This record gives sequence, C-alpha cells and structure tokens, in this order.
Amino acid sequence: MSRSIYVVNPNSNKAVTAGIDEAVERLRIDGGPAIEALTLEDGPPGIQSQRDADGVVAPLLRLASTLEDEAAAFVIACFSDPGLHALREQSARPVLGIAECGVLTALTMGQRFGVIAILPNSIPRHLRAFGAMGVSGRLAGELAVGLTIAELADDRNTLLRLVQVGRRLRDDYHADTIVMGCAGMARFRRRLEDAVGLPVIEPTQAAVGMAMARVLLGSG
Amino acid sequence: MSRSIYVVNPNSNKAVTAGIDEAVERLRIDGGPAIEALTLEDGPPGIQSQRDADGVVAPLLRLASTLEDEAAAFVIACFSDPGLHALREQSARPVLGIAECGVLTALTMGQRFGVIAILPNSIPRHLRAFGAMGVSGRLAGELAVGLTIAELADDRNTLLRLVQVGRRLRDDYHADTIVMGCAGMARFRRRLEDAVGLPVIEPTQAAVGMAMARVLLGSG
Amino acid sequence: MSRSIYVVNPNSNKAVTAGIDEAVERLRIDGGPAIEALTLEDGPPGIQSQRDADGVVAPLLRLASTLEDEAAAFVIACFSDPGLHALREQSARPVLGIAECGVLTALTMGQRFGVIAILPNSIPRHLRAFGAMGVSGRLAGELAVGLTIAELADDRNTLLRLVQVGRRLRDDYHADTIVMGCAGMARFRRRLEDAVGLPVIEPTQAAVGMAMARVLLGSG
Amino acid sequence: MSRSIYVVNPNSNKAVTAGIDEAVERLRIDGGPAIEALTLEDGPPGIQSQRDADGVVAPLLRLASTLEDEAAAFVIACFSDPGLHALREQSARPVLGIAECGVLTALTMGQRFGVIAILPNSIPRHLRAFGAMGVSGRLAGELAVGLTIAELADDRNTLLRLVQVGRRLRDDYHADTIVMGCAGMARFRRRLEDAVGLPVIEPTQAAVGMAMARVLLGSG
Amino acid sequence: MSRSIYVVNPNSNKAVTAGIDEAVERLRIDGGPAIEALTLEDGPPGIQSQRDADGVVAPLLRLASTLEDEAAAFVIACFSDPGLHALREQSARPVLGIAECGVLTALTMGQRFGVIAILPNSIPRHLRAFGAMGVSGRLAGELAVGLTIAELADDRNTLLRLVQVGRRLRDDYHADTIVMGCAGMARFRRRLEDAVGLPVIEPTQAAVGMAMARVLLGSG
Amino acid sequence: MSRSIYVVNPNSNKAVTAGIDEAVERLRIDGGPAIEALTLEDGPPGIQSQRDADGVVAPLLRLASTLEDEAAAFVIACFSDPGLHALREQSARPVLGIAECGVLTALTMGQRFGVIAILPNSIPRHLRAFGAMGVSGRLAGELAVGLTIAELADDRNTLLRLVQVGRRLRDDYHADTIVMGCAGMARFRRRLEDAVGLPVIEPTQAAVGMAMARVLLGSG
Repeated sequence: MSRSIYVVNPNSNKAVTAGIDEAVERLRIDGGPAIEALTLEDGPPGIQSQRDADGVVAPLLRLASTLEDEAAAFVIACFSDPGLHALREQSARPVLGIAECGVLTALTMGQRFGVIAILPNSIPRHLRAFGAMGVSGRLAGELAVGLTIAELADDRNTLLRLVQVGRRLRDDYHADTIVMGCAGMARFRRRLEDAVGLPVIEPTQAAVGMAMARVLLGSG
Repeated sequence: MSRSIYVVNPNSNKAVTAGIDEAVERLRIDGGPAIEALTLEDGPPGIQSQRDADGVVAPLLRLASTLEDEAAAFVIACFSDPGLHALREQSARPVLGIAECGVLTALTMGQRFGVIAILPNSIPRHLRAFGAMGVSGRLAGELAVGLTIAELADDRNTLLRLVQVGRRLRDDYHADTIVMGCAGMARFRRRLEDAVGLPVIEPTQAAVGMAMARVLLGSG
Repeated sequence: MSRSIYVVNPNSNKAVTAGIDEAVERLRIDGGPAIEALTLEDGPPGIQSQRDADGVVAPLLRLASTLEDEAAAFVIACFSDPGLHALREQSARPVLGIAECGVLTALTMGQRFGVIAILPNSIPRHLRAFGAMGVSGRLAGELAVGLTIAELADDRNTLLRLVQVGRRLRDDYHADTIVMGCAGMARFRRRLEDAVGLPVIEPTQAAVGMAMARVLLGSG
Repeated sequence: MSRSIYVVNPNSNKAVTAGIDEAVERLRIDGGPAIEALTLEDGPPGIQSQRDADGVVAPLLRLASTLEDEAAAFVIACFSDPGLHALREQSARPVLGIAECGVLTALTMGQRFGVIAILPNSIPRHLRAFGAMGVSGRLAGELAVGLTIAELADDRNTLLRLVQVGRRLRDDYHADTIVMGCAGMARFRRRLEDAVGLPVIEPTQAAVGMAMARVLLGSG
Repeated sequence: MSRSIYVVNPNSNKAVTAGIDEAVERLRIDGGPAIEALTLEDGPPGIQSQRDADGVVAPLLRLASTLEDEAAAFVIACFSDPGLHALREQSARPVLGIAECGVLTALTMGQRFGVIAILPNSIPRHLRAFGAMGVSGRLAGELAVGLTIAELADDRNTLLRLVQVGRRLRDDYHADTIVMGCAGMARFRRRLEDAVGLPVIEPTQAAVGMAMARVLLGSG
Repeated sequence: MSRSIYVVNPNSNKAVTAGIDEAVERLRIDGGPAIEALTLEDGPPGIQSQRDADGVVAPLLRLASTLEDEAAAFVIACFSDPGLHALREQSARPVLGIAECGVLTALTMGQRFGVIAILPNSIPRHLRAFGAMGVSGRLAGELAVGLTIAELADDRNTLLRLVQVGRRLRDDYHADTIVMGCAGMARFRRRLEDAVGLPVIEPTQAAVGMAMARVLLGSG
C-alpha cells in the first residue's frame, strides 16, 4: 500500500508533531498503510481559541489538497477538529478528527466520559462539538489542567495536573473513562491511566486507528 | 448614539447585502443605533459549503477588527453563522448570528420550527449547529428549495419554491413556525407567511432586533 | 407609534412594578414603541408557587383583553411566565415571557446558563419550563437565594446572596452566563455581573428587547 | 377504607364525567378505595385551549380543598393535566394527572408511543408537557382526530376517526402503543385496540390505577 | 379472581423474597388479584453484575412459562429488570420491571429523581437502562451504598448508609425524590423517607401497583 | 502477534459465520493480529428476539472464557450486541459490539444515520440500545427488510429489498449514511452503497477495525 494516512498537526509546533508521530508508532505495521505526521507550517503555535481553530482551516485545506493523491486518509490532530467537515467536503478520502474519534472510542469503554482540556476557554468550544455530535448525554464533565504552552514543557508538572484533573473527573463527576482533550501528549497516557485507575483514550491514536480500518476496508 | 450595528454579509454578493439592508430598514429608528449592512469584499460569491463558511472567518475577523471602535454590535448575516464564536472572542461588542437568533426567536412563536434551506448540502451543517445550540428537540424539520444562486435571481420561481417547501414543513413535518435559512430574502417573508399560514422568521431581522436591545441596554 | 408594549407585573407588588419600569428605561427611545409597566392589581403579593402562577392567568388575560387595542405587544414580567401560552392564544399581538426570553438571550452569550431563583420551591417549576422549551441541555444549574419577599427589601443582603449564588453557579456548576430568575431586580444586574465576572441577563430587559424588535418589524 | 379517590373532570360536561365513571368501574373492588368521578361545575364545557386549561386551576383547587379530608387521592381527568403541580402543592394526598400517567404507562408497553388528540391546537400544549416530563424522545408522534365536542357525540364517526389516526400513527410514525389524548372515551379503547392492533392506553384508567396503588401503599 | 400476579425475585436469596413478600402486603386486598412472591431457585445469590442479570433470563423465562396459565401478570423484582423485554415477548400477560416502574412512579412525585444503588458497579448498568427508557434528563444522580450482600444483613448500618446516600442525593444532586435501586428492602422505606425528608419509592411496590391496575383493567 | 481477535457469531448459522469471515478479510494484514470468525455452536439459528439475544449470553461467556488466553480482543458479531457488557466485565481484553461500532462509525461519515434491520420486531430492541448509547438524536430512522432467514438465502431478492429500504431511509427519513443492522451480509455492502448513493457501514467490519486498533495500541 503506497498511500499514507496523513496525520496533520494544524499548529506549527513541531514538538507536538513529534508527540503525534510517537503516539501512532504502534499502528505502523507491515501490511498497513504508512502513517505520516505532518506539521501545518502555516498554523499558529497552538490552537487556543475558536479564532485559531477557524483560522487553520484554509491552510489545512490547501495542504490536504496537495496531498490528496498520495493520501489514503486524513486525520486532523487537534481536539477542536478544525476543518473536519470542510475537509470531508473537499477530499475523496476518509477524514477523521481526533475529538470525534476520541469521544466515540470512549463510548465503547465506559458509560460516562470525562475530558481533560488544556485551557478552560476551550471547554465551551468542545461542548458545542459534543452537542453537534449528539453525545452530550454521555459526558460526565470536562475540566482543564490550565497550563500554558510554555508550562506544558514541564512534563513532571503536566502529569501531576493531568492526574489531579483525572481524579476529580472520576470522583466528583463520576467519569469512568477519560479522554485526553489534546494532541501530542500520548506519552502521558499510560501513566495517567495507572494513576487514575480508569481507561484513558489518547484521541490521535483513536482517530488513526479508525482511519486505518477505513483505509484497509476501502470504504469511502 | 454614534456607534453602529454592523450587519456583515460574509459573501461578496452585493445584491444579498442590499436585501439585508432592506430587511432591517424598519429597525432604524430615532434614538436607536445606526444599522449598517456591509459586504465582506473578500468573501466568496455565496456561502455554499462548510469550506466557504470556515473560509470567511479570517477576513470577517479582520473587517470586524477595523470596525471595532465604531461598532455598537456585530451581526453575522449568513445562516451558517460563520465566525460567530471567534468574533465573540475577539470583540468587546455584542455579536449575534442570524441562525442562532432566527431559531431562538422561532422558539417564542411556536413549538416546532421548520427551516427552509437554500441548498440540500447545507442541512447537515445547520443540524450540527442546532445540536451545538442544544435545541434539536424543537426542530420539526429542515428542507431545501434547491436553487442555485443564479436561479434565486428569479423571484417568482423562488417564492414558489419557498411556499412549496414551507407547506411541506407544515403538513408533513408539523412545523408551526418557519425560519428562513438564509440572508437577504426578507422581501419574501410576508408573502411566504401569507401563503403558508404560519409565522415566518427572517433571521437577519431577528438578529438585528436582538442586537439593538443589547446595544440599548448597554450589556456586554 | 401610538401603541405600547405592556409589561405586566402579574403580582400586586408595586415596588416590583417600579423595578420593572426602571429596568426597561433604556429601551424607551424616540422612534420606538412606548413601554408601560403595569401592575396586575388582582394578582397576589408575589408569585411563589405553581398555584400563584396558575391563579394569575385569568386576571392577566382579562387585563390584557382590555388593553388589546392599544397594545403593541405584551410582556409577562414574572419568571414563571404565567399565562404565556394562553395569552398567545388570546391576543393578536406579540406575547413574550421573561423566563423564555431571558434564557434564550443567555444562549447567545455563553454555553451553559445558570439561573438564580428567589425561592427553592420555584426551581422544579422552572425546570419544567426549560424542559418544555427543549433547552435543558444548556442549563448549568439553578440555585435559590432563599429570601422571602420581606427579606428582599434589604438590598445589601440581597446583593450579597445574589453574588454568593452566582459565584457558586460559576465555580461549582460551570455556568458561563447567569440569568436572574425574577422580575424587578434589574438594579442589581450590573453589580452582580461585576462581582461574579460573568454576563448577567435581566430577563425583563431581554423580553422587552425582543418585543420591541417584533413590534418594529410588524411581525405577528 | 373510607376515603375516596376523586377523579375530577375539570370541564362541566357531565357526559364526559359519566364516561370517566364508566372507565374506572373495573378498578372498584371490595378492598380498594372508593373511586368517585366528579364534575367541576365551574369548568368550561370542554378544555380546548391553554386558556381553558389555566382557567380551571382555581376552581379545581377550590373543589379539591373542600374534598381534602375525605380524599384518598386526586386524579385530574383532562389530558392537559391542568392544575397538576398546583394541586400537588396544595394537597397532602397523592395527585395524579391522566396525561402524565397515560404516557408513563405507555412507556411500559412499547418503545414509541403515539398520541391521539381531539383537536390539533392541543398538540403544542401536549408537546410542552412531554418536554417538561423529559420523555419527548419516546414520542412517535401526535395527531388529532379534529372533531368538535358536538361531532364527538357521533360515536360511529368518532371511532372511525380514532382508528384512522391510530393506524396512521402506527404506519407512518412507527408508534407501537397508542395513548388516547382525552378523558371520557374509554368506551372506544378496546375497539380501537382491535382495529389498530396496538396496545391502547386509556389515560384515566392509567392514572386511577396508579392512584390506587399509592393509596393502598400509604405513600404520600 | 383466581390468577396471581407473580413477583419473581430472580436471585435465589429467600430473605430477599421474604422482603418482597412483605413489601407488597398492603396491595393484597379483597377483590384484587393474588400476589405471590417467588424465588428463582436457579438464580444466583444476588444480581451483582451484567453477567448475573443476563444469566437469569433463561431460567426466569422457563419459570414464567410454567406459570403462564395461572399468571395474571409478572413483575421482575430486580432493579436491573433482567429479562423484562424477553418476557414481554414470551408472555401474553402484563410484564413489569421494578426499575422501570420505580422510576416512572418517581416521575409523578418530583422533578429530579435520585437512585440509591447497592453496589457502584451497578450504576453504569442502570444508566444504560435509563437511557433506553429515554428519561435520563430527569435523573438527578445515582450513588451506591457500597455494601456487600453480607453487610446488608446488618439493618442498622444499612439504614445509616441509605440515609447518608439519600441526603447526599438531596443536597449535592438536588434530587427531590429517591428511588431505592434494589428489591427486598421495603422495610427501610418509611424510615429513609423520614430521615431524608423526600418521597422514597420502593420499586417493587411501584411495579406491583402498576401490575394490579393492568390486571384489573384487563389490558394486555 | 500470536493472539487473535475472535469475532463470535452468536448464532449457530455457519453461513453467517462464513459471511463474517469474508467481511473481515481485508483487515487481515502482515503485522496485524489474526482475526478468527467463530460460530457459537450453542447459539440459536438466528437472533430474532430479545429472548434469543439474552439467551446467548451464557454460552457466549463460556466460549469467551475458554478463549481468553489466546484472545487479543473479542467482537460480538450480532447487531443486538448480546452479552456486550457482560463480556466486558468478564474479559481483560477489548470487547466490541457490532451495533455499537457500526453506529459510532456512521457518526463519522454523516449527520443522520439510517439502519436497515432484518426483522421489524428487532427495531424496538435496537432503539433501546441507541437510547442506552445516548445517540438517538442522530438516528434518521430504522426500517426492516422483513425477510426471514430462509428468504435471506435468495441474494437477488435480498439485495433488492436492501436497496428499497436504503432508498426509503434516504428519501423519506433524510439518512445520509446507512448502517446494515445485521452480521454476515458484507457481500452486499458495495452494491447497496452504489445503488443508494450513500456511505454504507457494514458493522462487523467497523467493529473489527476498532478492535484491531485497540489491540495494536495495547490499550485495555
């Protein structure tokens, strides 16, 4: 199979892209499609607002357009799923968003999913998305770690906050699964899962997994 | 009051802007805020896809930014409410979308609202928005007239189709109010209402009305 | 425009009517409709139960009937929206309820609205109304200040309680807008907003604003 | 047991009361509570509007007040459940509404309930009630026979219309149970059930049955 | 009336059956159907998992099959409602489940029901059931006492935990009614109600009450 | 990777198992987990009722228990997802159901999914499942082909009926994706898709795809 699943990080932060690349490593297998993590060079340093999310759609569509022929599928690796529906219109390939797939995968692993956002102001945006998906009734709650991009560089503190928030979702909101509401942080998944004692879904993995199945099955 | 409510048509079609301008004429009163209909010159000829909707956000935000100081409020005059939440982040003024306000106004006039879209492929986009708004349970149905921009130039046929679709929403979907799912067609509102026998909400009027109240009250 | 928007306080408490009158002052403009706050003389001192709410419908309809010819619109200024649907049947004018309009306006200002009730036993009644409106999914929570009519006379303490409850809705229920679940207390709106740091909707203002637009537009 | 379940017909139509009386005959058993059907003499000839529904609350509460001491429970025998929540506030006895109980009983007999209303304009009122009850997701649809009180006197035609509407709910709306959206028509239940081939719930029977259990159990 | 309502305890714990028998004593009246509590001898000691719930369906159906001719109705007396829909298919008699009827009865007694489960791992199973019933919007919350079958033998401690959890549902979750999420514990109902100050629904009583009405009315 | 994804057909019909085996052929790749389709020998010829669905849980759990050590994951290949939650309790492996995964995958391919059932009496069972999943708001409708197991042997007629029903879901119910509500019929997927012009999801493929990703990622 010569076409690739393109996992597009719509921000320009290459550390995030590296984290995405690492997240999907286990999905790269001999008979499977190639999986390439890409950085949207024209994207902002991080997607921290609705404006950022809307703003990356145009460059994302342009990038995807240049990749269409070699693409087996596209995964948009940002928890705001920017451009998800626009790219579905443009491309003949499967297009998956990590928020959508992360949440849907959580629905198969527990009854009430909790979401850990990075920033508090992302939460209303995510809630709108869950409403548009029609799955709000399954949401236990969403809370933010409240760390800036700079602060996220401190892995030890980031894990600490993830665990604190995860435990609060478990204890106060009765979440029985946790969705990481961000891309590029797969390295924390297992440790977060161990510390909280609930299944933790890393959404880029969930989305690339669903993309892979779509590609292998040859469905549109 | 020297600041204006800017009603931005995010497509470049000046006939639509003229229709918007006409729609809000009755809301221009002594003592009230000025109401100016503007064309987003950088917008596409029409907003006919999610791509179009996402694509106008950046120029819309730029335009709004230049107007911020003179703005009393902003109304985004496209039934996809493009940039609604992004502009709310950016601006200190009230920001209203015509889909949101058209639907909310319909909720005060009947129990089940029907929506008339222009194109069928807009319907899923609108359904996502109603889901994000949390009002899907009040939707009777949405149907499209299925006319292209060119075809919309024929007023007689357009009215005919609006009436056909409105009657179908009334008879087969039990709608008791009708929301026009587009901007710039206020000239048909009264005739549609008379022919269908249900209240018809022209969404730009609904949104500018709500903006006007916000401006007068001085709420954020 | 010689007809008036009648804002009917369905209780007999003239201090409440005075508060309503003050609340809508900024909506009285040269070219706009007159706005008159009226007391339902036959109403109870306060609407503190479902019985009170149901009981005012008949005198409210009678009063409205005598005003029909001079009415441009009716606003029912009680957060239980008593007689809302009955008056819609009776009158050919726009009829708006403050709970309905307060909540709908909140939907344009945040993702999850909180409501501050006066008495705890009003909350189930309000929840039924939000269910009937189909917007329960957007409710963050509703809490009561728990003050009697007599206690409400102490403005300082009332504000204190409003702020306490507003902060609790913000912190524990994740509300990002607050709807005041009562009429006649507009004087606290700005201070509450400042103290809580969230937009606060005074529902009579919201309803009269929507009524004004309906009147100017001449819609039914 | 000397106290009675009072089944109050809130309209003044004694033929309806007689129908109610007949409907509950089979629930009158030796060891059970007495069941008395009463006419609200001050009620309108029929409850055909929200105004009618609201208007009967005050006389209904007065009547119930005089009966409180002898009452084991109250059933409000009108599909608009007028005064249901007000009477619950007033009385220390179980208070049940026929719409509420008819629908809840239907939920135990099928997955999607259809409702047959008498008049089309009652449907929005019923929809608001289902929304307030939080069960709208189980509604297949509601349709009206469209007969006036006078026309209902013709049993043959009434049955014909009930069957037509019941079949339409079954075939076009996929209802698998039918709730009769009115009081006093129990005599048609069995024939309607036979003709449509779905379980048909007569709501007064459902409510009196639930009241009887509450009375026997001595719950509040 | 010679046929009986069979109230089947689908676990083999005869103390639970005895508790069920006692729970329905007040519903046994002259003129009413006999009510017999039965133990499913082939059932597990308790239904503590989905596996247990699914596992009792086959023996439950077999038992019900042998009883069909003498049965007036069946009540499945386990809060997981095991076999509810399967038995409805098999039997020509009314079939009621205690979770379904307990919840539906709660809907007539308050606006937001709380549920007290025995074990925490039952909660997701119950939530799925409430979702299937379409009533999740009315749920205030569900919490578990967290006692094993052995620990439940200590009545004093069990009541203590029921009250603690009931108060938490009232205070932190705003429940205004409480449904006991188990069978066989009717002896605590009144004391729990007194201690919490909210109506408490014992679900077997609710279900047998609804069954009794169905039997008397002769509906299918 | 030496452990297998076991795709269990819970009925004893080996033709169905063969269809399942064929369905997943494209997901068998170098480097990926083995995928084995198994027949539950103790299952009924078909799962055509709630009784059938409940009845296979015990033998299914037994079979899964014997396979636990060699299992990488389990997929329950029946659109009633029998035993889904019970097997999740029992097994340490990922457990996926085809209805759940088929529907969730549809949510990524359109806004309103339609479902084609085999038999009409399965529809209420499926609706309960969608309710428990919390996704009913995305359902366009479900219709049955109404063919018996014997009639399904006629491929030509089966395809004809699938297409008729698929077109009706598209035209009358506004479905924009179709989920095949059965296992073992993957051979029709492409032709159905071509004839209806909408994406068609074969649910066993969807579930095995999701299982494969879970296995590769090593998540619990």
